[in-house]
Amino acid sequence: MQDVPLTLQMVLERATTLYPRKVVATRREGGSQRATYAEVGGRVNRLASALTQLGIRPGDRVGTFGWNSQRHLELYLAVPCMGAVLHTLNIRLPADQLSYIANHAEDQVVFVDASCLPAWNQLKGLRTVRQVVVMDDLSAAGRAGTTGPALPGALDYQDLIEGADGQYPWPTLDEHQAAAMCYTSGTTGHPKGVVYSHRSSTLHTMAALFADTLAISERDTVLPIVPQFHANAWGTPYAALLTGANLAMPARFMDPANVAALVAEEGVTFSAGVPTVWFGMLQAVQAGAVDPALLGTLERIVIGGSAVPEALMRGYDELGIRVVHAWGMTETSPLGSVAMVKSTTQEDQVYRTRLSQGLPSPGLRVRIVTEDGELAPWDDASMGELQISGPWIAEAYYDPEAPDGRGGLERYDQDAQGQRWLRTGDVAVIDPEGYLRLVDRTKDLVKSGGEWISTLDLENLLIAHPGVAEAAVIAVPHPKWDERPLACVVRSDPNLAAETLLGYLADHLAKWQVPDDVVFVDEIPKTSVGKFDKKVLREAYREHALPNR
Amino acid sequence: MQDVPLTLQMVLERATTLYPRKVVATRREGGSQRATYAEVGGRVNRLASALTQLGIRPGDRVGTFGWNSQRHLELYLAVPCMGAVLHTLNIRLPADQLSYIANHAEDQVVFVDASCLPAWNQLKGLRTVRQVVVMDDLSAAGRAGTTGPALPGALDYQDLIEGADGQYPWPTLDEHQAAAMCYTSGTTGHPKGVVYSHRSSTLHTMAALFADTLAISERDTVLPIVPQFHANAWGTPYAALLTGANLAMPARFMDPANVAALVAEEGVTFSAGVPTVWFGMLQAVQAGAVDPALLGTLERIVIGGSAVPEALMRGYDELGIRVVHAWGMTETSPLGSVAMVKSTTQEDQVYRTRLSQGLPSPGLRVRIVTEDGELAPWDDASMGELQISGPWIAEAYYDPEAPDGRGGLERYDQDAQGQRWLRTGDVAVIDPEGYLRLVDRTKDLVKSGGEWISTLDLENLLIAHPGVAEAAVIAVPHPKWDERPLACVVRSDPNLAAETLLGYLADHLAKWQVPDDVVFVDEIPKTSVGKFDKKVLREAYREHALPNR
Repeated sequence: MQDVPLTLQMVLERATTLYPRKVVATRREGGSQRATYAEVGGRVNRLASALTQLGIRPGDRVGTFGWNSQRHLELYLAVPCMGAVLHTLNIRLPADQLSYIANHAEDQVVFVDASCLPAWNQLKGLRTVRQVVVMDDLSAAGRAGTTGPALPGALDYQDLIEGADGQYPWPTLDEHQAAAMCYTSGTTGHPKGVVYSHRSSTLHTMAALFADTLAISERDTVLPIVPQFHANAWGTPYAALLTGANLAMPARFMDPANVAALVAEEGVTFSAGVPTVWFGMLQAVQAGAVDPALLGTLERIVIGGSAVPEALMRGYDELGIRVVHAWGMTETSPLGSVAMVKSTTQEDQVYRTRLSQGLPSPGLRVRIVTEDGELAPWDDASMGELQISGPWIAEAYYDPEAPDGRGGLERYDQDAQGQRWLRTGDVAVIDPEGYLRLVDRTKDLVKSGGEWISTLDLENLLIAHPGVAEAAVIAVPHPKWDERPLACVVRSDPNLAAETLLGYLADHLAKWQVPDDVVFVDEIPKTSVGKFDKKVLREAYREHALPNR
Repeated sequence: MQDVPLTLQMVLERATTLYPRKVVATRREGGSQRATYAEVGGRVNRLASALTQLGIRPGDRVGTFGWNSQRHLELYLAVPCMGAVLHTLNIRLPADQLSYIANHAEDQVVFVDASCLPAWNQLKGLRTVRQVVVMDDLSAAGRAGTTGPALPGALDYQDLIEGADGQYPWPTLDEHQAAAMCYTSGTTGHPKGVVYSHRSSTLHTMAALFADTLAISERDTVLPIVPQFHANAWGTPYAALLTGANLAMPARFMDPANVAALVAEEGVTFSAGVPTVWFGMLQAVQAGAVDPALLGTLERIVIGGSAVPEALMRGYDELGIRVVHAWGMTETSPLGSVAMVKSTTQEDQVYRTRLSQGLPSPGLRVRIVTEDGELAPWDDASMGELQISGPWIAEAYYDPEAPDGRGGLERYDQDAQGQRWLRTGDVAVIDPEGYLRLVDRTKDLVKSGGEWISTLDLENLLIAHPGVAEAAVIAVPHPKWDERPLACVVRSDPNLAAETLLGYLADHLAKWQVPDDVVFVDEIPKTSVGKFDKKVLREAYREHALPNR
């Protein structure tokens, strides 16, 4: 067989040769900017030439600091395909974390959206960044130079492209070399970098095209709401390019009205994002703020990042839009599992199945390891840490001190066959059909008198109560039981009493699972990616006196 | 990233763990035999144990000589997953070719369907086969032992399985090691062996699941009419297993009535085979011999192996069954291209697009190289040899003399980047949208006065004439023009005259493209895989006196 490496050059070449007339549209103030894949291909050649002129060599890191856009897409193609490493910086992280990350990754050139310059300018002590390129997403000309660069010494993206050679000699790449990296905003310690290889990214791209995963097709127009700095927008840009789907990029216009307008203008069929965004859209539709007719072309939305509430899924079902629940993490590239419903599923189990974290993608394997290190049976009840194995699963975090850039921060178990399994930190069960259900994060579980209590289950119950807007459950130290659950609740009904809520929970749970107390708060603290920051809550309520129940 | 090899063990594990209740049904005299993938998995473990007991070691070749069946599927799984090499012998080849092939591949153990024993017993001079295992597909017991083995010294498959250990320790495999091999029945010289690696087979399996290729899904029940000894039934068994589709195996019952009954009984949604088979089915339906209601669940059929006539496609369209045209060859694993219709295709171009050889699968690249060694533009007119590149494309035939089993019989061009391209021997054009159209085999082209004439185009025109049942066009030596076309025609209308046909062709072609003569024959000679054997025709008409037109 031919020794053809699996690299993202496949994606670049296919999009530009087989689908030259397909389009990426980027939402701008007062309309969208559109370019064909042929045009993108020409610009990607120029971008690679320009980066070479800027001294970027194979293996060098090129950072991005911006929203989803055509330009960000061009960087997705040029940087890995020239052998350099794309590093998507999360614009929502605090400045000190971002400085740490850019220094740790040793970013040399960083591409910054003009609208993100205020945030970028907060970064202090950058030791390796020697050039900033501004992508003007504010002016009609789309060129920072027209109003003067907003940052001294910065280059303008459009000038850079136009001044560069349109013929770039793409090198032959090794499929195991680094293509991109992404830092996880962990809740403990410094952020950690995950390095994607060309092989892992290419296989991951293929996995999004399977009929039983995301089934992205040439007929689709794909709108990634999930940012390109979140695990590569879940791989949707590469998948769209490989199979010739159009792309619609929201840039910073992610409010329901703008997203709905983009859907209608571009004929979006497929979208992807976290539950919060889609909750906002559903509420806007239900409140009459967004005309549901604007969403008429939208067929399916992939939701991940945190569990999908049943009400959200049913709400979109009523609009004729199918919510597909998927699970993954930065360390899994991120597509890990998709809640595809088997044709053999009983009618009354369909929603339960759709709300699960789903089946591992073809190419991946999952297992549950108990506290004792034993493999748990697939009985939908035996809990343990979810572990996952496959060619697009990380086995270590980036460590510049390690000889090959890895090895210092491993997070895996090894089985008897020598196969490595990523320890996800999620507590899960698997049912006899292979469907995965996350129970909790290992560190969020409440360990009470030798039993585990899932805070996720409690939160799902709480949020289903009509008087509750948000709820997070945490473990609080307890002299007798070691830990006991405490519910932190944002009320939508100001008259809701703690006793009422506890009574409601008692109707649905075993007695020992019911939280010992409820505290009402104004809001639940969130991390930079919008997840509950339970570390902050645990700190705040560490000494909370639980009533004696 | 984890270093997880791409091996067919992924297919075995996924089918048995995630889809244990899915079914493979095998057509038998008077009904079907069914087994779940869990049962198949158990038997595959026993089969691997038994093969180990028979002395099969990593790299050893295990032959099969039989129809599509559950047992053949078990061999597809056990042999590669234990590190041995599956060699599917084409039961339709002449005995001397088969003996050559089995010796060349050095098959050690061969599994033979009882119904194929008469053919098998014709093989002479086998030097390496030391054990035959009979798969009884004739008796109700399915066990050769019940009536005494039909071949002295042969073992019975069912006895072998039942006597073996159910726990087989699957080894860790290298993705580049050989998984299977298949010989091409070339029209010149000895048959040549193509060796598939685990990597190539696994990627090829994934490629059949893409939404824009075959889109095989868990909801499907897949019926491979294409034999398991033809390029692994085009990869459909592995694809079905990987994504959890049911399988329906026709065994030797491939007449329209039996196929229709199998479709109805198993609820087949997807099938695959050469045009001849599907022509037969359509004729049976049109003649009232097969009730079209039996085909009610059938959604799509992939047709390849030779070009699909438009009448065939339209005939199935009327039945509500979508014909998907695909192209490939043994050397391409075989999935090369699929005639998926882009959503941007103009309405009046849809059939022309569906009848083309299609777009290369994601992962593959195609190009056209002219006689001068130049790359032809994608203008739908510039002809040249089709070349193809990708991780499941062969670069050499099996050569036991070469140190690594390859290198002696290469058939590729190398480009400036060092990438190898398989020379397919097909003459083709590519249109601006990337759709491939085969014009002819290089050796079948008529080279007339410096111009190329496609015999395939002429044949398509001839077959569209109502008085023509079959037609093959060949080159005949010509003193002035070098070569001129001669049409060999099987009439359905016995009164059809040569002049009438030539006049019809002249209405559709440039004068120099019209054949110089027509000869009427009783039948067109065919190769063992049912293609026109033009070598025989060329030999017979080498000295045919062309009239002076």
